[in-house]
Amino acid sequence: MATKEFAIGIDIGGTTAKFGIVNRKGDIIEQDRVPSNTHDIVQDFIDDLGAKLLPMIERAGGVSNITGIGMGAPNGNYYTGTIEYAPNLRWKGIIPIAQLFTNKFGLEARLTNDANAAAMGEMMYGAAKGMKHFITITLGTGVGSGIVIDGRIVLGHDGFAGELGHTTIRPGGRLHKGTGLHGSLESYASATGVRETAIEFLTEHPQTESLLRDYSINELTSQTVFECAMRGDSIANMIFEFTGQILGEALANFVMFSSPEAIVLFGGLTKAGNLLLNPTRKHMEANLLPIFQNKVKLLFSELQESDAAILGASALAWEM
Amino acid sequence: MATKEFAIGIDIGGTTAKFGIVNRKGDIIEQDRVPSNTHDIVQDFIDDLGAKLLPMIERAGGVSNITGIGMGAPNGNYYTGTIEYAPNLRWKGIIPIAQLFTNKFGLEARLTNDANAAAMGEMMYGAAKGMKHFITITLGTGVGSGIVIDGRIVLGHDGFAGELGHTTIRPGGRLHKGTGLHGSLESYASATGVRETAIEFLTEHPQTESLLRDYSINELTSQTVFECAMRGDSIANMIFEFTGQILGEALANFVMFSSPEAIVLFGGLTKAGNLLLNPTRKHMEANLLPIFQNKVKLLFSELQESDAAILGASALAWEM
Repeated sequence: MATKEFAIGIDIGGTTAKFGIVNRKGDIIEQDRVPSNTHDIVQDFIDDLGAKLLPMIERAGGVSNITGIGMGAPNGNYYTGTIEYAPNLRWKGIIPIAQLFTNKFGLEARLTNDANAAAMGEMMYGAAKGMKHFITITLGTGVGSGIVIDGRIVLGHDGFAGELGHTTIRPGGRLHKGTGLHGSLESYASATGVRETAIEFLTEHPQTESLLRDYSINELTSQTVFECAMRGDSIANMIFEFTGQILGEALANFVMFSSPEAIVLFGGLTKAGNLLLNPTRKHMEANLLPIFQNKVKLLFSELQESDAAILGASALAWEM
Repeated sequence: MATKEFAIGIDIGGTTAKFGIVNRKGDIIEQDRVPSNTHDIVQDFIDDLGAKLLPMIERAGGVSNITGIGMGAPNGNYYTGTIEYAPNLRWKGIIPIAQLFTNKFGLEARLTNDANAAAMGEMMYGAAKGMKHFITITLGTGVGSGIVIDGRIVLGHDGFAGELGHTTIRPGGRLHKGTGLHGSLESYASATGVRETAIEFLTEHPQTESLLRDYSINELTSQTVFECAMRGDSIANMIFEFTGQILGEALANFVMFSSPEAIVLFGGLTKAGNLLLNPTRKHMEANLLPIFQNKVKLLFSELQESDAAILGASALAWEM
């Protein structure tokens, strides 16, 4: 039997599903996307996606030339192939998404959560290439994480391991409206968190001049804060210093758990570059035991975000 | 070749080294101990230990009937077989302890840190028997931890993973004199931490009557606090409530990292039983995302502490 040339990677996000056909070198030879927030019934979503993916499969030589489908999705469970109670997806309850894709395309399908898929992408094709111990942290609207130990994604006994965005870093701190938890990493070190910090700091320092005061509350975003910080605005710089401090303290805790070779950061907030990276590194090192200090590489992802998700998801198919 | 019947387990602690000969069922057929804090030179320690262990080996049928030596020691590194800069051992720097034992006894020797060895003991013979995902937390003078994922001890890229006692749970909180870190789990949820909490609470509530005030500062120990709590003392009860809160919050963070099936607690503080367990469980659950709630077993170790250490260390030898 000839070796199959391609795998399919599908990344199901809160608003869009991106998918592509990937070769063994990690080139996405063709990709496309469909909305993921407009279908009340999951089968309609799969049919829409199929209308675009089936012709791509044909152009790649048909299903006989494809090893399988790898998928990443919020609350995706590797063990069961189901999406379970994902708060930011339209389909509620437990969705047997891997089985539904197998039925549709006649290919074996494997699922993991979106952050784990991104970690696999980093391990196979990105900044963590060749590493056996690392953690990826997505700093986007929320904070996601994928943990790799001994070259394998940490899934835990039930498939839900690696929810580092929801660990507490400021006990009794800021309320996370989505989870009801107080002081979680996600409530500070996400785009949403940076915006909340901006509003807090502007309110707490009413006398301090700031370019941020020229924006309406609705216009205040992590992007606005970044632009103002680059223009030398002191409050905007304080916001990144504070965000980096919280993130750095949290990373120190993660390092003392699994002693990774590297932590790979990606997502929108990383556009802030050294504004975020420098305080993060400083506060991470300051909170580590000496045996861990100056050992852990703090890296930005080298992959385009959409590529990482598709590549990472496809990696699940190569494992079959 | 006949199957070898026995393994040797050695647990090197700050004051005592315990060692024994263990069969495949996990029975310690013979055990003994030597001081570990009286020899300036590590070879003298090994010779003293050998004077007791060599006759035990003979009685077990000689080295040909023994699969090897497994050892647990503070800052023991599995990858290198060396003890590295252990703060509470007399031998400084890097000690090639596995090699020295091999030289002495003519048996292969493997090393891991003492907390990891205890976790292996729990997995093979104790409360975590048959589990593939669990965490052990030692609540003794300090706080140690051993993490098991997919049935294997988490070592990390350098062999030092699993220092959960040093993760920060109260940023900017209590100073840990040994590490210089602020607000680490160990500075609260250890025997030393309970004593410090007692002193703090007695100072902060000078008007509140307490049986604890009948003891001198030197007599205040976690044992004293336990005894007073059992007699209904309100400050002593507050101390365990607070200790359990801190521990529970920390455990919630650990659960969201590796999603274990169970957390196994052992060490001196667990003598407090439900006084500690109830607030710990309550605050752990309160800080978990719903997908993790009411899933994680919170257990006390079923092994005698010294047995767990010897059995766990011996488990390394069975892996050879």
